[in-house]
Amino acid sequence: MILSGFYSASSLLKSSGAFWRIWTRKMSADSSSLTLRQQQDGIRINLEKIRSNTAVRSNSASLSAARGPVFSSGHDLKELTSARGREYHSKVFQTCSEVMTLIQDLPVPVIAMVNGVATAAGCQLVASCDIAVATEKSTFATPGINVGLFCSTPGVAIGRALPRKIMSRSKQSLPRLQVAMEMLLTGRPISAQDALLHGLVSKVVSEQQLEEETLAIARRVCESSRPVVALGKAVFHRQMAEGRDAAYARASAAMVENLALRDGQEGVRAFLEKRKPVWSNSDEEAHM
Amino acid sequence: MILSGFYSASSLLKSSGAFWRIWTRKMSADSSSLTLRQQQDGIRINLEKIRSNTAVRSNSASLSAARGPVFSSGHDLKELTSARGREYHSKVFQTCSEVMTLIQDLPVPVIAMVNGVATAAGCQLVASCDIAVATEKSTFATPGINVGLFCSTPGVAIGRALPRKIMSRSKQSLPRLQVAMEMLLTGRPISAQDALLHGLVSKVVSEQQLEEETLAIARRVCESSRPVVALGKAVFHRQMAEGRDAAYARASAAMVENLALRDGQEGVRAFLEKRKPVWSNSDEEAHM
Amino acid sequence: MILSGFYSASSLLKSSGAFWRIWTRKMSADSSSLTLRQQQDGIRINLEKIRSNTAVRSNSASLSAARGPVFSSGHDLKELTSARGREYHSKVFQTCSEVMTLIQDLPVPVIAMVNGVATAAGCQLVASCDIAVATEKSTFATPGINVGLFCSTPGVAIGRALPRKIMSRSKQSLPRLQVAMEMLLTGRPISAQDALLHGLVSKVVSEQQLEEETLAIARRVCESSRPVVALGKAVFHRQMAEGRDAAYARASAAMVENLALRDGQEGVRAFLEKRKPVWSNSDEEAHM
Repeated sequence: MILSGFYSASSLLKSSGAFWRIWTRKMSADSSSLTLRQQQDGIRINLEKIRSNTAVRSNSASLSAARGPVFSSGHDLKELTSARGREYHSKVFQTCSEVMTLIQDLPVPVIAMVNGVATAAGCQLVASCDIAVATEKSTFATPGINVGLFCSTPGVAIGRALPRKIMSRSKQSLPRLQVAMEMLLTGRPISAQDALLHGLVSKVVSEQQLEEETLAIARRVCESSRPVVALGKAVFHRQMAEGRDAAYARASAAMVENLALRDGQEGVRAFLEKRKPVWSNSDEEAHM
Repeated sequence: MILSGFYSASSLLKSSGAFWRIWTRKMSADSSSLTLRQQQDGIRINLEKIRSNTAVRSNSASLSAARGPVFSSGHDLKELTSARGREYHSKVFQTCSEVMTLIQDLPVPVIAMVNGVATAAGCQLVASCDIAVATEKSTFATPGINVGLFCSTPGVAIGRALPRKIMSRSKQSLPRLQVAMEMLLTGRPISAQDALLHGLVSKVVSEQQLEEETLAIARRVCESSRPVVALGKAVFHRQMAEGRDAAYARASAAMVENLALRDGQEGVRAFLEKRKPVWSNSDEEAHM
Repeated sequence: MILSGFYSASSLLKSSGAFWRIWTRKMSADSSSLTLRQQQDGIRINLEKIRSNTAVRSNSASLSAARGPVFSSGHDLKELTSARGREYHSKVFQTCSEVMTLIQDLPVPVIAMVNGVATAAGCQLVASCDIAVATEKSTFATPGINVGLFCSTPGVAIGRALPRKIMSRSKQSLPRLQVAMEMLLTGRPISAQDALLHGLVSKVVSEQQLEEETLAIARRVCESSRPVVALGKAVFHRQMAEGRDAAYARASAAMVENLALRDGQEGVRAFLEKRKPVWSNSDEEAHM
């Protein structure tokens, strides 16, 4: 069963089940922009609920648009005028960065489920997720340069997901593949297939398959022990930011911690006894 | 219109227009090597002219060979004998590193336009550009190992552009794809298509299309506001060298700065008013 | 000629020749696991022999399974029970990290020769090698999550070799390409072709070609000067862990050192004199 979390503060996460679902857009909203309110009261509050909610045993979350042809079109330019002022602008981008890093810092994997246009901070949202499934018609762009606002913050997430050069196989009439630097410098959109080839999304499916495929990955993740997934995700991201030797020291310590978990030992025993493991999903230790 | 900058100190950048053009080889030169003089008085002086020339409104530059089948064959081995001595060698490589990093640090994007062989420091030159367009016949190699001189400095640029392993689909009779570590260890050249698949170049075209395609990208870049491109390029490279959180802090601050620029606000207003923006290309601020 | 190093302390490196060969599994062993003893007395001791053995002039090594359908299945879960205790677990993972980093720190390039299953620390072993050749039937997985033990230490090596997202071209009935994060989160194996497309292995060949292709790369490496290869490999890995400017400073200094080597000057002279270089393979300097 799918849990739907609406981004308005009044209609938050509703139920638990296979995984949490967070909408990038309010059901009733016409706008596809990530307004400050939507980032704060919508996505962030729901992500924090997932983080703090120890009662619910789900261990993956998905992020999708409630409806319409746009996954997310990024910041609302009306919030970025001189009239609003520098302090307000700072708050908008600080909140945005908090939301994006929260996705990565969350103990559960977050899957983007994209059916439509993802631009600027919307494209950044996709790049920030652990896994992303997109429909064939989806497109991805960082068009800020066209409105005189270079997509620097999306560049942080996209630059960490993509190589820095365009690729093209125009000779073979395959789609032109553009990546980080050219996306940022020209603002041109790339197709779902190009996004796939460059690692911006994980899988491209038809519209009919989108729900099913996203759920299949989510369910697979949910078959694992929750504290093991949480520990693994956190350590993976942390060690990737470190030098090799520090990374190995951290990861080795994590393996030892993992083995001391009740579920770590349950898994090892189940393997040796050739049976299915039964997860406690608790943080309890099996040994000191 | 194309601006041609010859690398001899006496015939520098000649005119402005769509973008600057810098030759990797002197028009009159027979050698395809990057001699110390060519690096200092040719490429570097021209790059510095572009950086300091605030009168010229171009905001992209291209780097190409003036003629012949070689883009650049790297250092001149005659400059690297014991007779020249350690101090001279140090100067050669220090200058080379300065030229390569200057390309990345320049406020305008630099596009390599490659029609032929790019080896050792010539290959490094391609890897150091923001965007690279190559003809089908172009090849790329780091053959230093064959002459007992491991391409360590090219490895800095290539290692940051390519994955570390060879790739091959020999079974499907597609070209063998070789990358950083095997390029460096075996010295074998890779084709333009392989370079494309590994992100060393951005696009592969026929010889007839080379000029046109390079110009198309340059023109697209030139349609944007110059200070916005300069800010964006600088911040992109800087944040990529930082940890995620520091990167977001830098990029968020850059977005706020960008919005305070006259052109940042012009872009936002033009978008909301559904008209084309008119860039001032100045560093003036729209608000404090 | 191939040198075979068995991992039991009593039957170490036997002879020299084209390159060293180290088995990931004992010839007589039924188990395909990397037990602590196998890591310590097998792989590590042989790697250290190669490092310290200045008499032998080989400059590449290969790592392969002695027999059977498994390259390496990673840690022995029997060593990871509560009964063994935390201190023992720490020693297992510390030793493992030492072996993996030793491969990278070795002055000679190490080539993985894979014919079969490589899972968990076995997959990490492949990702840690400089070059990897695999047969078509080989598969790669990090299935720890299924036994409640997230593959955090393999993630260090794999995360540095692969992009972080799954790729799929299911529409074109091409193999589904999965990478680091999804490999780690779902535990699903990827094929040799997928591993190739993501840079985990360097080349995929038929079983008949495996030996020949691995030898061809090893021989090519062995044609170069040993101290030049050693310097180049060490500097490449070190500079990749640094910021661009520090990397250029290190690499420039390395070029100057390389030129001062007898073999550096022999190579330059041979090139200028249009003859084949004759390597001394010694660390002697040609000039101060």
